[in-house]
Amino acid sequence: MSKKIGRVSLVGAGPGDPGLVTVKAKKLIEEADLVIYDYLANPEHLRHAKKSAVTLCVGKGFRHRALSQEKINRLIIQQAKKGKEVVRLKGGDPYLFGRGAEGAVLLVNHRIPFQVVPGVTSATACAAYSGIPLTHREHNSSVTFLTGHRADDENLDTIDWEKIVALNGTIVIYMGFYNLAKIADRLIENGMSPAMPAAVIEWGTLTS
Amino acid sequence: MSKKIGRVSLVGAGPGDPGLVTVKAKKLIEEADLVIYDYLANPEHLRHAKKSAVTLCVGKGFRHRALSQEKINRLIIQQAKKGKEVVRLKGGDPYLFGRGAEGAVLLVNHRIPFQVVPGVTSATACAAYSGIPLTHREHNSSVTFLTGHRADDENLDTIDWEKIVALNGTIVIYMGFYNLAKIADRLIENGMSPAMPAAVIEWGTLTS
Repeated sequence: MSKKIGRVSLVGAGPGDPGLVTVKAKKLIEEADLVIYDYLANPEHLRHAKKSAVTLCVGKGFRHRALSQEKINRLIIQQAKKGKEVVRLKGGDPYLFGRGAEGAVLLVNHRIPFQVVPGVTSATACAAYSGIPLTHREHNSSVTFLTGHRADDENLDTIDWEKIVALNGTIVIYMGFYNLAKIADRLIENGMSPAMPAAVIEWGTLTS
Repeated sequence: MSKKIGRVSLVGAGPGDPGLVTVKAKKLIEEADLVIYDYLANPEHLRHAKKSAVTLCVGKGFRHRALSQEKINRLIIQQAKKGKEVVRLKGGDPYLFGRGAEGAVLLVNHRIPFQVVPGVTSATACAAYSGIPLTHREHNSSVTFLTGHRADDENLDTIDWEKIVALNGTIVIYMGFYNLAKIADRLIENGMSPAMPAAVIEWGTLTS
């Protein structure tokens, strides 16, 4: 008898508002044996999980990890090999600054069946909830998404700020709060008008 | 007795797969008196509408509009003023190349209460379904979203291709199919390597 291998779903949970989870993500949470989530995914989503499911929070905040990435990876692989349905719930969208790529590579290397379920990304969600369209046909032709902390966190200088400013489109910086002052400096040093309107949005789709 | 004014919801329907609609969008469709949609929103979503709801397709394809934008606008305003709950269902996300900004301006000008409900945008959805992450911490720091046809459709030269190529990040071009050859030419003329891997994806989350 061949041993059944489980499946891993890298699932975008959306930006926070429980209503912004997709029907597909909700169904996968309902069916999962193990749901792994972190502080960027609203724990409210876990109420969809079945009673027998194990839910595990692996990070309580930026720079505060309850479990190392290596331990999380080992757990996901171990449980999938036992035939479990594993959901790795990510805030926003897994393939847009969500580290989904790293997860996918891991699963390919271990030959574990997986799927990636896109989610509403925080850029468009915060735009909608704060009344700021990212595009308007008469005003801009591009939107550029960046992340405000890179792999090495401090080193914002790997970003080519001059070219980003020159592009003259909408700029959305994910996870920019920690480096906010530095980011503003880099933009202005590289040609951005200090009078350019900007919004700083945190937990943009939650009520409090 | 004051007359009740209805509400208009500009709702992102996601990229096509009926499972990628949000829980919030589904609920709004269920409660709507009038649902207006076009060829970019999967008609499958309309099965959530109540029996008494009117559903109206206002465009059957790119460049094939059943109703002019002006007529659609007039209908939305008229029905909202009659106290109806109106859902304008948009493919993808309303504020990311979805003409949601124009809709919002119209509703503000007519003092009609409205909300914008973000959706899964086709860029992240097609990335997930085709196995192409948009970002990887070790490889790129930005993603730029453009539209392949502008307000004037033909005039791709309002886009600053040189600066977009120079940015050296992931580039996603929405609605680029019609101008595909021209877009490829512009990219290469402006410094993109002809060997750069590229994917052309249409109806990327639908089975056929």
